[in-house]
Amino acid sequence: MKMQDLDTPALIIDLDKLELNIRDMANFARQQGVKLRPHIKSHKIPEIALMQVREGAVGVTVAKLGEAEVMAQAGIEDILIANQITGPAKIKRLLELAERVRVCVAVDSREGAGLLSQAAVGRNLQLGVVVEVDSGLRRCGVLPGEEVVDLAKDIMELPGLSFEGIMTHAGHVYGMESWQEAVEVGRREGELMLEVARLLEGAGIAAKEVSVGSTPTAKVSGQVKGVTELRPGNYVFYDAIQIALGVVGPERCALTVLSTVISTPAPDRVVLDAGSKTLALDKGAHGASLVKGFGIILGGDGLPESSLTIERLSEEHGVVAVEAGFSPEKPKLNARVRIIPNHACTVINLFDQVYGVRGEVVETVWKVAARGKLQ
Amino acid sequence: MKMQDLDTPALIIDLDKLELNIRDMANFARQQGVKLRPHIKSHKIPEIALMQVREGAVGVTVAKLGEAEVMAQAGIEDILIANQITGPAKIKRLLELAERVRVCVAVDSREGAGLLSQAAVGRNLQLGVVVEVDSGLRRCGVLPGEEVVDLAKDIMELPGLSFEGIMTHAGHVYGMESWQEAVEVGRREGELMLEVARLLEGAGIAAKEVSVGSTPTAKVSGQVKGVTELRPGNYVFYDAIQIALGVVGPERCALTVLSTVISTPAPDRVVLDAGSKTLALDKGAHGASLVKGFGIILGGDGLPESSLTIERLSEEHGVVAVEAGFSPEKPKLNARVRIIPNHACTVINLFDQVYGVRGEVVETVWKVAARGKLQ
Repeated sequence: MKMQDLDTPALIIDLDKLELNIRDMANFARQQGVKLRPHIKSHKIPEIALMQVREGAVGVTVAKLGEAEVMAQAGIEDILIANQITGPAKIKRLLELAERVRVCVAVDSREGAGLLSQAAVGRNLQLGVVVEVDSGLRRCGVLPGEEVVDLAKDIMELPGLSFEGIMTHAGHVYGMESWQEAVEVGRREGELMLEVARLLEGAGIAAKEVSVGSTPTAKVSGQVKGVTELRPGNYVFYDAIQIALGVVGPERCALTVLSTVISTPAPDRVVLDAGSKTLALDKGAHGASLVKGFGIILGGDGLPESSLTIERLSEEHGVVAVEAGFSPEKPKLNARVRIIPNHACTVINLFDQVYGVRGEVVETVWKVAARGKLQ
Repeated sequence: MKMQDLDTPALIIDLDKLELNIRDMANFARQQGVKLRPHIKSHKIPEIALMQVREGAVGVTVAKLGEAEVMAQAGIEDILIANQITGPAKIKRLLELAERVRVCVAVDSREGAGLLSQAAVGRNLQLGVVVEVDSGLRRCGVLPGEEVVDLAKDIMELPGLSFEGIMTHAGHVYGMESWQEAVEVGRREGELMLEVARLLEGAGIAAKEVSVGSTPTAKVSGQVKGVTELRPGNYVFYDAIQIALGVVGPERCALTVLSTVISTPAPDRVVLDAGSKTLALDKGAHGASLVKGFGIILGGDGLPESSLTIERLSEEHGVVAVEAGFSPEKPKLNARVRIIPNHACTVINLFDQVYGVRGEVVETVWKVAARGKLQ
C-alpha cells in the first residue's frame, strides 16, 4: 500500500526518521555512560518501546499504571512509573504488576510512601521507589534540599519499600523562549539533582539512580557527571514545539498528520479535515505558548510550508489562512497536506492506529495500544 | 456499584440531568413546530442518540462519516452529515450508507456537488444534499445571497442529487462575550437563513429544510418563523463554556470528570490525576477564550467550588491553585473532586466509556462507540 491510498486524516510515522531518532539518543546515552529509560507516553506503542529497548534502553518510563500494564504485556520487563500512585485500587494493581516485572514508582510525601509500604507489606513484596524532586516545574515533587533527605530517611524506615534514588522532570523548559534558556534549564536540572544526591550522601544514603527527563534537556543534563539515567520521550518523533524551542529542525520530525482540503470557500482560506480532535489544541507543553498556529504544513501537492498557517481549529475542521496573491495558487479541493503537529504526545492519544511509512510505501500499521489509559 | 467505588479519572453522566436536558429541548422544538435533529458529536453514544429519538428527534446530525456508520449500526435511520464529503473513498462509503438509511450531506461548492453526483449516478442512487451557508463562522459554506441560489440551481441540474434545502452552524456564537450578544447571533442566524430561503423561492426553488444549529442559539433561531430544523448537540450535557456564555447554570451540567488528588506538594497547590488527556485544553469553541481555568471544580469532600481553580494542565496532571488561608483546609491526598469540563464534546472523545449515575448509584456503563471516528 502507498501513502496516497490512505484515507485522511491519518497519522503517519516516517520509519527512517523514527529509527534515526531512537539510535541518536541511544548513542548519546551510551557515550555519556548513562542509562536511557525513554518515556513511552509520546508514542504509546509497544512496538516502538521494544525498538528502544533493542537499541539499548534499560526499560521504559510511563505516566500511568494502565500504560505500564500494556508495556509489561508486550514484554518490557523494567518500568518506572514517573507519577504518584496513591489510591487503593491502583496500589493493588501496582503490586500485582510488581509481581510480574521490575516496577519502580515515584513518591513525594511521607503519606504516599506510607500507603505503598502498608500495601507492599500486606503482599510480602519489596517495592522500588524514587523520590520525585521538583526542579522548577511546580507540579508534584519535593523541593530540592533537606526535605528530600527527610523523605528518603522515612522511606528507608518503612517496610516493603526499597529506596532507589531520585528523579525529576524539568518540564518548565517548555516555558523558555530560546534555546539558550532551555540549555540553562537543563544544566540547572542536572546540577540541582547532583546537589540533592550529595546531601543524601552526607546523610549516609546512597541514591542509586539520579534520573532526569525531558527531550529538550536530555543532552544537557545528561552531561552532568553523577546523573545516572535519562528519560526523554518526545525525541522519537519531535514536533513543532521542539522546533520552536530550537531542539531540532523539521527534518527530524517523524510524526505527521495526513489531511485533505475539504472546502475552498474563500480566496484567503481553505479548510482541512483535521481539527482539534486530530491535531489537538496544544501550543506548548504545560500551558506554555511557543508556536504559531496549530501545526506546520509541509509541502503537499508541491506547496512550500511558509505560505500556509493553520489559524483556527474546530473539532473536525482546520481553517488554513492562505496569503492573498500567493503563487503557486492556493490548495485545491481534495489536495492533501502533511502537518507536523505542535505536540506529538497528545496527537498520538487521539488516534487508534498509526501508519509506518518508508518514503511513500506504507510498511506497517501499529495499534496505539496504550492510548487513552487514563487510570 | 456506587460512584465511590469507581477509580479515577472517570467520566460521569448524571442521568436525571441528561434526561431533563433531552426532554427540555425536545419540548421546545415541539412547541415551536420545528424538527429536532441533535448533533451526536457531543456524546458519541448510540444509547443517548436513541433516547433523543424516543423523545421526538427526527434523526441525528453527525460531523464524520464514521460517526454516521456507528449511528446507523445502532438503529438510527435518518442522518445528516453536516460536513463536506469530498474524497473518493469517503464518497463510496457515503453511498453504501445511503443504501441502508436515509442520509443527507452538506455541500458548499459546485465541484463538491459534482463529485457526489458522479458517484451517485454510478450507483443508481438519489442522494440528498443541503447547501451549507456560512452565517458568520467563516469556516466552510457559501455566503448568504445569490451564490446559494446559483449552487442550488447547479445541484438541481446534477443527476443523482436531490436538493433538500439549506443549513448553517452559527458557531461564531462561541466568540461572543455576553448572553445578549449570543442572542443577537441566534436571531441573525435565523433571519439570514430566512432571507436565503426567500431568495431561493424567488428563483422558483423550494428549500424543504431550513436548518440551524448550536446549543446557545437553538432557542433563539428556533423561534424564527420559517426555520424548519434545529441541530444543537451540547445541550445533552452543557458545560463550563455554556455556563460562561449564560446559556444555563451549573445545575444543568450532566457531565463531570471524577478525579483524585494525587499530590499536595505545597501550601498553595494540590495536583489532580486529570490533565489535558482527560479535561482537554479547550477554553472556548472554535478558538474563543471564554472561561477561567480548565473546568469548574464542584464540591468534593465538602469543598465549595469557588476557592479552587484548575490553573495548569500537563497531560496527566491538573495543577489546582488553593487560596492561601482558605477554610476549610485544602483538599487532602486521595480526596476526590468532580469537575464540570470546559467543553463536554472534546472530553467525551478522550474516554472509552462513561458511567451513568443516579444520585450516588452507578446505573449503567456506556461505551463511547463513536469516539475517535476521524474519517
